[in-house]
Amino acid sequence: MTRPAASAGALRIGILGGGQLGRMMALAAARLGIATRILCPDPKSPAFDVTSDIVVADYEDEAALTRFAEGLDAVTYEFENVPAATAAFLAARVPVRPGTRALAIAQDRLPEKTFLAECGIPTAPFRAVDDRPGLEAALGEIGYPAVLKTRRMGYDGKGQAKIARPEDADAAFAAMKGAPAILEGWVPFSREISVLTVRGLDGSLASFDIPENEHRDHILKYSRVPARLNAGTAAGARAIGETVAAQLDYVGVLAVELFVVEADGRERLVANEIAPRVHNSGHWTETACVVSQFEAHMRAVAGLPIGDLARHSDVVMENLIGDDVARMAAILAEPGASLHLYGKHEVRAGRKMGHVNRIAPRR
Amino acid sequence: MTRPAASAGALRIGILGGGQLGRMMALAAARLGIATRILCPDPKSPAFDVTSDIVVADYEDEAALTRFAEGLDAVTYEFENVPAATAAFLAARVPVRPGTRALAIAQDRLPEKTFLAECGIPTAPFRAVDDRPGLEAALGEIGYPAVLKTRRMGYDGKGQAKIARPEDADAAFAAMKGAPAILEGWVPFSREISVLTVRGLDGSLASFDIPENEHRDHILKYSRVPARLNAGTAAGARAIGETVAAQLDYVGVLAVELFVVEADGRERLVANEIAPRVHNSGHWTETACVVSQFEAHMRAVAGLPIGDLARHSDVVMENLIGDDVARMAAILAEPGASLHLYGKHEVRAGRKMGHVNRIAPRR
Repeated sequence: MTRPAASAGALRIGILGGGQLGRMMALAAARLGIATRILCPDPKSPAFDVTSDIVVADYEDEAALTRFAEGLDAVTYEFENVPAATAAFLAARVPVRPGTRALAIAQDRLPEKTFLAECGIPTAPFRAVDDRPGLEAALGEIGYPAVLKTRRMGYDGKGQAKIARPEDADAAFAAMKGAPAILEGWVPFSREISVLTVRGLDGSLASFDIPENEHRDHILKYSRVPARLNAGTAAGARAIGETVAAQLDYVGVLAVELFVVEADGRERLVANEIAPRVHNSGHWTETACVVSQFEAHMRAVAGLPIGDLARHSDVVMENLIGDDVARMAAILAEPGASLHLYGKHEVRAGRKMGHVNRIAPRR
Repeated sequence: MTRPAASAGALRIGILGGGQLGRMMALAAARLGIATRILCPDPKSPAFDVTSDIVVADYEDEAALTRFAEGLDAVTYEFENVPAATAAFLAARVPVRPGTRALAIAQDRLPEKTFLAECGIPTAPFRAVDDRPGLEAALGEIGYPAVLKTRRMGYDGKGQAKIARPEDADAAFAAMKGAPAILEGWVPFSREISVLTVRGLDGSLASFDIPENEHRDHILKYSRVPARLNAGTAAGARAIGETVAAQLDYVGVLAVELFVVEADGRERLVANEIAPRVHNSGHWTETACVVSQFEAHMRAVAGLPIGDLARHSDVVMENLIGDDVARMAAILAEPGASLHLYGKHEVRAGRKMGHVNRIAPRR
């Protein structure tokens, strides 16, 4: 779908999902002269403010999907839980990128972990848990502590329960509410990082510098770049991202969340999960790189060169969650600070309202 | 109009004009969570792609202006030729920023030059020319070479004619087509620079680093930062921008185009014109600064702190004019290059299609 250079101004990309990620993808597309059409069921979607072309409809509404797909050069999405039927329906009409395989893998922790293991990428030990006896058997193999997680629809720590000792198992199982689950061994990590990899339509691969991520209440709070990491570990993280992208025949930006485990003075990486989309831990790229993750994603999806992912500044990204946004005036006056607000009018506890990137010269 | 911090997400700013400057202002506003409403007579305006809230109407259409103004926190504009009646009509309903005085000054070269002179800012010698005898008298005072310019609506070298010797006067006068004109003495400049100054609603003043500008066929082709300039000259340029902004009780970004004249190893500045808006010679700020000229302008217009205008990288901005845009694919693959296209579908000779900012570490 690579277009003659001069016609890029005529490209139109569809985005499934109207949250802040869709909004930031649309803004990045606009800078490239690429028009966007956004589909989301919520008429108050933040992304709707930044495009003239919207479809308010459920993801399962086939008439709306037909209308949505018409005249688009490609479709992408801001979230991994796009229903498989929706992706398939659209894929019959227009290229869907990153691709349906990445969606299938990332929607379910069991095939996700299995895929990572097949790629030779270390993960926590894991077992599928379909019922209470299955949990018992899995605990017998994996031991304690362990984490029981729903296979689908978990994010920001939702749908997870730690099992530190046998007597925690009943409560953890009940917390799954009968959903298919996966038991994972506890990873004694010292730090969390992620790799943000871009794969072009032509198979070209590149990764941004590695951010070190700090979570509060299971929600990302800070990403710091550069991460405190041995050069070899950073290279290993990039290799993981690029292996995943290549194996999935991926197009666009993906993130792999990684644990850093330290033992005997050495660092070891354990892959936690794959996000087949732009990712919160890559928001710093907007201020500290020439090409942001959002632009790199839209370039790839549009079949254009992915560009230069080099970082010109050191940076710390802080998520503004809930009432954090009340600090806006102070942040606006702060040297080196780039504020990004998502246009959400209602402040709610735990809601991502915006972020701020604070840059400094590279050390 | 400074708002409590937490309510910035509810700000809505109107923009008069739907070209690339309006588009880039709207994109910058969106990053701050500020909604925009754009009025332009052309239904194919590039800026219309990046907002959900548009008014397609003539600038003189009072019913449309009433609709446009409704519920806005402020109105700004992308071009200095907003009709005075339009500005006055809107100003009775909603704050118009930068302000009607800046518009009046910048729309007519005679009050503009007079204002600069009153501020103690050096300009070329100038005389009003209303008829052919008036031109003769003005040439007698100013001498040769000189430039005859229409007082209004000139840009990119349009409405200008050089008079190198007496026999050029007739053709130059005819080129004005009867419009009121101004004769300016020729400035033997060695370089062109500009100063981009931001003034906040609270009167705070700051300027970006000074770009050195290179024109081709009277259209800006390159802006390079840092400019080759003595530190004292750069400080003088900033002082000029800040004097103009303060004297006009200005709110937002303005540009003053300046000539650098070298004699006896010393640099001297001569002010050419004032642009009461974001300016092409500030497009580099988008890639080389934390806060771009577009964001600084929208912050000021919204009554927010203007932010940190520091530059983190050296940069060259190249305008992509007409068929230049055919080099898009190569530029997208170039290290350090940030491409910005304006979403114009029709390529025309002399038309600004986009720009590219090429950054490098600060020397």
